[in-house]
Amino acid sequence: MPFPARAGDPLAAIDTPALLVDLDALEANIAAMAAFAREAGIALRPHAKTHKCVEIARRQLAAGAVGLCCQKVSEAEALLASGVGDLLVSNHIVGAAKLARLAALARRVRVTTLTADAAHVALLSEAATAHGVTFEVLVEIDAGDDRMGLGAQSLLPVARAVAQAPGLVLRGLQAYSGPLQHVRDAAARADAAAETARRAARARDLLEADGLACPLLTGGGTGSFRDDAGAGVLNEIQPGSYVFMDTDYARNRDRDGGPYRPFAQSLFVRTAVLRARPDGVSYVDAGAKALNLDCGMPDVAGRSDLSFTKASDEQGRIEAAEPARAPALGAALHLVPSHCDPTVALYDSLVAVRGETVDVVWPIEGRGART
Amino acid sequence: MPFPARAGDPLAAIDTPALLVDLDALEANIAAMAAFAREAGIALRPHAKTHKCVEIARRQLAAGAVGLCCQKVSEAEALLASGVGDLLVSNHIVGAAKLARLAALARRVRVTTLTADAAHVALLSEAATAHGVTFEVLVEIDAGDDRMGLGAQSLLPVARAVAQAPGLVLRGLQAYSGPLQHVRDAAARADAAAETARRAARARDLLEADGLACPLLTGGGTGSFRDDAGAGVLNEIQPGSYVFMDTDYARNRDRDGGPYRPFAQSLFVRTAVLRARPDGVSYVDAGAKALNLDCGMPDVAGRSDLSFTKASDEQGRIEAAEPARAPALGAALHLVPSHCDPTVALYDSLVAVRGETVDVVWPIEGRGART
Repeated sequence: MPFPARAGDPLAAIDTPALLVDLDALEANIAAMAAFAREAGIALRPHAKTHKCVEIARRQLAAGAVGLCCQKVSEAEALLASGVGDLLVSNHIVGAAKLARLAALARRVRVTTLTADAAHVALLSEAATAHGVTFEVLVEIDAGDDRMGLGAQSLLPVARAVAQAPGLVLRGLQAYSGPLQHVRDAAARADAAAETARRAARARDLLEADGLACPLLTGGGTGSFRDDAGAGVLNEIQPGSYVFMDTDYARNRDRDGGPYRPFAQSLFVRTAVLRARPDGVSYVDAGAKALNLDCGMPDVAGRSDLSFTKASDEQGRIEAAEPARAPALGAALHLVPSHCDPTVALYDSLVAVRGETVDVVWPIEGRGART
Repeated sequence: MPFPARAGDPLAAIDTPALLVDLDALEANIAAMAAFAREAGIALRPHAKTHKCVEIARRQLAAGAVGLCCQKVSEAEALLASGVGDLLVSNHIVGAAKLARLAALARRVRVTTLTADAAHVALLSEAATAHGVTFEVLVEIDAGDDRMGLGAQSLLPVARAVAQAPGLVLRGLQAYSGPLQHVRDAAARADAAAETARRAARARDLLEADGLACPLLTGGGTGSFRDDAGAGVLNEIQPGSYVFMDTDYARNRDRDGGPYRPFAQSLFVRTAVLRARPDGVSYVDAGAKALNLDCGMPDVAGRSDLSFTKASDEQGRIEAAEPARAPALGAALHLVPSHCDPTVALYDSLVAVRGETVDVVWPIEGRGART
């Protein structure tokens, strides 16, 4: 499949729909998070599930990231080309085929993964020994999100099982809460982050009192990184969305009550007007197959007078506050996705733009619904 | 990217998440729609945006389809390998790059596309003459869906512009209503289909009274095809979802008040349990990047006691009515997508299963957010 643009193209030459990243904003975001982590004295392990793109991973590593997170074995495989040496597959991996692939990765780089179940520990150990590799393992705790992690009362048997299992090394704890990232009010978000930190500290203390090492306490995300670092418990943060941002993160409030904007919006879907109705209703060539809509409709960048109100598979409906200012047939609009990660996963490539010119087009090596 | 299974594999060997099609059900669906169209004396042009897969298109054509619909130029390009000779790109195409690609297609097969705007007709004509090809054109009417089509009062100037434009041939009218397909009550759905037919008949009569030919009246879909054919106005139907079905179509009611099941559910997402909590909550490896959730959560096939209640990017939460019957760590579940088209678009391949064995794995040539 050919890419929708070539280096040197003006914006007008980009075929639509296309996923665009503003390079100035992307670079500023990568630099800002790296500077924050450096100054806060906390390790930064960006979550690559957001972008699934080798070139962005390379830039995060060059800025000082200690490694990457991935959510899938296929993502980890795709992102090896970034030169990453320390990969956290922050998910629970099951199945002989996938564990064999995880073992193949562990022959090339340091691989850490999660568990929360003694029976699962046995599967990981069996795969590691069968393939002659070592998996480092984090026990996932319930960080306040009621998902896959363990409460304090169930933690020790699983951590002990990891520490004793052949082929496994207990590296510490994963304390990530997804819902906390999207708590709108800054004070409530800080309280939730403090609760996650308390749970992490308690879990670490339980491990250490039992004679188990816990060198790594990792978690945190784009919504909570300042509070996570401030709490002084996690020694690593794993934010992902900060490279791109989206309208869902834009709904968070900052401490002053204003919009939460520690990072610039860098990600856009470029779309063209296929039909400009005389009544000011327009249809564009980006619908449910070009935008993930689970977190709502996209915004139209720079045009608060235009609302994206509905999507079919391949078309979006745009309504203009003033019909006379509706976009014309063929006009291009830049949409701000409501949820960056699953929108990026739809695309084969990311058109990186500097000002009004295409600088480079990057493949999204890990995209799609993969194993 | 390797496929998640190979021909001859047992189900248990399929890596997850994977998109599965039950071949017996798929073949029965293709045969049933073809038989319906043959007996009703109406042409069948399946919408390939549903599957984007050359092998399924081939089977639809072999069963007697007169051609295919596509929604994108990239889909049309990808589906040429099916041997299709008559392609309807049922969308409004703008932009020099995309029109050049449409012209390249028109050198190989008969290409028809849509318009509803005299300025757009000029763009189509310019591209056709510049590239030395002919585009056949349908004027899209408002079929009752208030989308891109024209009302009767605006129709004639556009139809005349098509008929007079160099490089264009007026082939007729497109009268498709998406919302009508999902009207739940059978009688209300029949009424809506009758309204679409009335609009189509009125538009055709206006054209013919003006001396314009209208050999093709096309529209209709999986929810309305019986009513569309029964109304006797459309001479072609363009259903897509009938090959797969989904939970959204399952919410339609049939004339007897029971579930709308003219076709069998053939499409599933196979997923594995990554975490089986002692309280009966499970997490599987299919979330918002493996399932389109705009029409709600998926069902768990054959397990009405299990509910898929929430999704993060790469994980889905399953709650069991009886915790003792919750699936075990590593167990596989088959999910019924809520909306087939945008779910299929997420995958690189379709694992075609006959009974308990993988028969063949098909690439989904047109998948992804393409131009």
